[in-house]
Amino acid sequence: MHKNKRQREPEQAAGNGLLDRRLFLTGGAAAIGRASLPDQAVAAEALPIEPWMKTPGSYFVPYGQPSRFASKVARVFASAPGTTGTGASRTPLHLLDGTITPNGLHFERHHSGIPDIDPEAHRLLIHGLVKRPLLFTLEALMRYPMESRVAFIECAGNSALLYQKEPAPFGVQPLHGLLSCAEWTGVRLAVLLEEAGIDPSAQWILAEGADASGMSRSVPLAKAMGDALIAIYQNGEPVRPSNGYPIRLLLPGYEGNMNVKWLRRIKLTEGPTMTKDETSKYTMLLNDGKSLQFCFTQEAKSVITRPSPGLTMGAPGLYEITGLAWSGYGRIAKVEVSADGGASWAQAALQEPVLPMAVTRFRAPWRWDGGPTILQSRTTDDSGYMQPSRSKLIADRGARANFHFNGIISWGVAESGEVKHVYA
Amino acid sequence: MHKNKRQREPEQAAGNGLLDRRLFLTGGAAAIGRASLPDQAVAAEALPIEPWMKTPGSYFVPYGQPSRFASKVARVFASAPGTTGTGASRTPLHLLDGTITPNGLHFERHHSGIPDIDPEAHRLLIHGLVKRPLLFTLEALMRYPMESRVAFIECAGNSALLYQKEPAPFGVQPLHGLLSCAEWTGVRLAVLLEEAGIDPSAQWILAEGADASGMSRSVPLAKAMGDALIAIYQNGEPVRPSNGYPIRLLLPGYEGNMNVKWLRRIKLTEGPTMTKDETSKYTMLLNDGKSLQFCFTQEAKSVITRPSPGLTMGAPGLYEITGLAWSGYGRIAKVEVSADGGASWAQAALQEPVLPMAVTRFRAPWRWDGGPTILQSRTTDDSGYMQPSRSKLIADRGARANFHFNGIISWGVAESGEVKHVYA
Repeated sequence: MHKNKRQREPEQAAGNGLLDRRLFLTGGAAAIGRASLPDQAVAAEALPIEPWMKTPGSYFVPYGQPSRFASKVARVFASAPGTTGTGASRTPLHLLDGTITPNGLHFERHHSGIPDIDPEAHRLLIHGLVKRPLLFTLEALMRYPMESRVAFIECAGNSALLYQKEPAPFGVQPLHGLLSCAEWTGVRLAVLLEEAGIDPSAQWILAEGADASGMSRSVPLAKAMGDALIAIYQNGEPVRPSNGYPIRLLLPGYEGNMNVKWLRRIKLTEGPTMTKDETSKYTMLLNDGKSLQFCFTQEAKSVITRPSPGLTMGAPGLYEITGLAWSGYGRIAKVEVSADGGASWAQAALQEPVLPMAVTRFRAPWRWDGGPTILQSRTTDDSGYMQPSRSKLIADRGARANFHFNGIISWGVAESGEVKHVYA
Repeated sequence: MHKNKRQREPEQAAGNGLLDRRLFLTGGAAAIGRASLPDQAVAAEALPIEPWMKTPGSYFVPYGQPSRFASKVARVFASAPGTTGTGASRTPLHLLDGTITPNGLHFERHHSGIPDIDPEAHRLLIHGLVKRPLLFTLEALMRYPMESRVAFIECAGNSALLYQKEPAPFGVQPLHGLLSCAEWTGVRLAVLLEEAGIDPSAQWILAEGADASGMSRSVPLAKAMGDALIAIYQNGEPVRPSNGYPIRLLLPGYEGNMNVKWLRRIKLTEGPTMTKDETSKYTMLLNDGKSLQFCFTQEAKSVITRPSPGLTMGAPGLYEITGLAWSGYGRIAKVEVSADGGASWAQAALQEPVLPMAVTRFRAPWRWDGGPTILQSRTTDDSGYMQPSRSKLIADRGARANFHFNGIISWGVAESGEVKHVYA
């Protein structure tokens, strides 16, 4: 079974079986597939008539749900002992494909559970250093011009376990599942701020949520006047309660925590407000005992979602390596994949359209020879920034930073087909 | 209240208050807004502390749901008397924004209800004029290279009531809600057909579903070898049962019925199979008593979703006119909006990215003077085809065609703010 040869093939793109990404154009993959796929696809004369063809199916419902056979495609979650919903739920990225996260599976990070907000009673106040404070109902906000954009949101604490000395024995969902991507629609915050009239002394805003924790963060006015959105719709429908119903702040590319949910108040200020949520939390402790504060942008990062831990590989042969890449600085320019622990790299195919501050799906064909190896991905964004190795990230920043881990992620593949989280 | 003046303004783009779409760039809308918005946005000193800020919110769940306050954002449905789920459910396009339809609200058209398919037992057979028939499990299909694309699906019978002599007194959802748009991910059908080996005599395929009606349609081989996809994922997660779980055929731009759900069999044939679903149904009856058959592509079409019937307008002032445009022939090149029943037209802003065979969101600023009028939209795709007027469509095709209605849609606005379906 295990042939550890490094036989040169015309379509080889990097070591240990990584093939040219253009094989995915129609034709090539079939040619490879024919030779490489196991005999799961076999000739057959006829199909059985399954029971569901023999009786009428079920009726319509107003709001549909997934198949009962897909019950494992679900979030996992944990909360702090003694609290109601102070914790996080994680997206099952290893069981999804494409780039959109369906609303029922978008990750969550709550600081005091999900409030049950009556949209008729909810208000958004804009005040502080403005010419005239404004109070908006949802109905008033709906009168403004809107725009839509696809954007990822990633918790600043995503992948934090990779700062640990030993690789945590988990898969994509528990390690990296605080990442989701949706089409958000709403009103540009800049339009509302201009209507309120900005005092020249204002340089920051405070954004506060209507949950019981009063979660609040300071945001530079430049971002608020840039691409910041008051999001009313998430993947077409009203924003979910777990994502800020009836309105949330969307700051494309910024750490998740700043995209304040259940948004109730924006105060214009001279400096940052230094709230509990940006002093005791969401700061990065360095080796010298000082902390980095106000690290807003999620740096370029990528992760292979398939194969990954929990998805045991079958017989040797052709596999698609696929995953997600994203950068808070702009568009993904390139994703490279290694099947030999970083010794050589092949460029992956990127699914069009590649949008700024959205996840990009990458795919690379790989002929697994059945031997043990290590799979990795690394991305470069259009600012030229390349995802660093884990060791370089920790050498630069120390291992106590807790937030913004974006080092290269490694999956070890065993001869048995088992996939495990490793450091390499 | 009602000032029926046609006062010339610098930013005017067409008659009766249609403003230049560039007003939506930051700044302009606020300037207009300040003068035009009603006093829903008022100054305020402080915000009340609502009850949901005083107690911890609710806990996490594996698969999230919409807010209980958004229960009206739901599909409406009807089925033929005496049947289980032979009918259709319709997407509430007037309550959505953006371009993605969330999976729980995707429209449905079933011919014998929704089958409850066990994905482990489900098979896809490729046979007929092939070198070797192939039988695929879902697991085998998952090994193939995949691709993602955003695509609309529209039922051929969408908007059929507009063939009637008098305008049906309904809104967007009952009239035009057999249209949805999602990100689909799966395997190119061409890859599987090449693996089976196509006999040179094959010119068509038959695609059959595993529902109790055995819904089946003939598709030209050229389309099957083109952009046809075996879709496994819908907006990231496994395809919903109501949309074909575990797999459906996706034929971008083709009438919905041909995107066969619960796909179980593809047979390569010399000619079309002339199934019950493409002879007694999904053909267009012309005035001379003959029928048009195999009209595959959904032509360019657009509809204003807001304002629309059921969404009564408030005081005169600035409104955003927004809606969707789509074409089975390619990309939307242009959408024009009229606020004077077609006498003059202003170009609407198109939300980027504009993708082929996907819906495109358009927006146009409109200052309503409080007078009665008629709103319309018309789109042109990148093949140069322009959506025709209703009267031209019926003059060309007759009023008994039932399918593929894509004429211009008109909403009448009354002085009271009420919006009604009209012919114009």
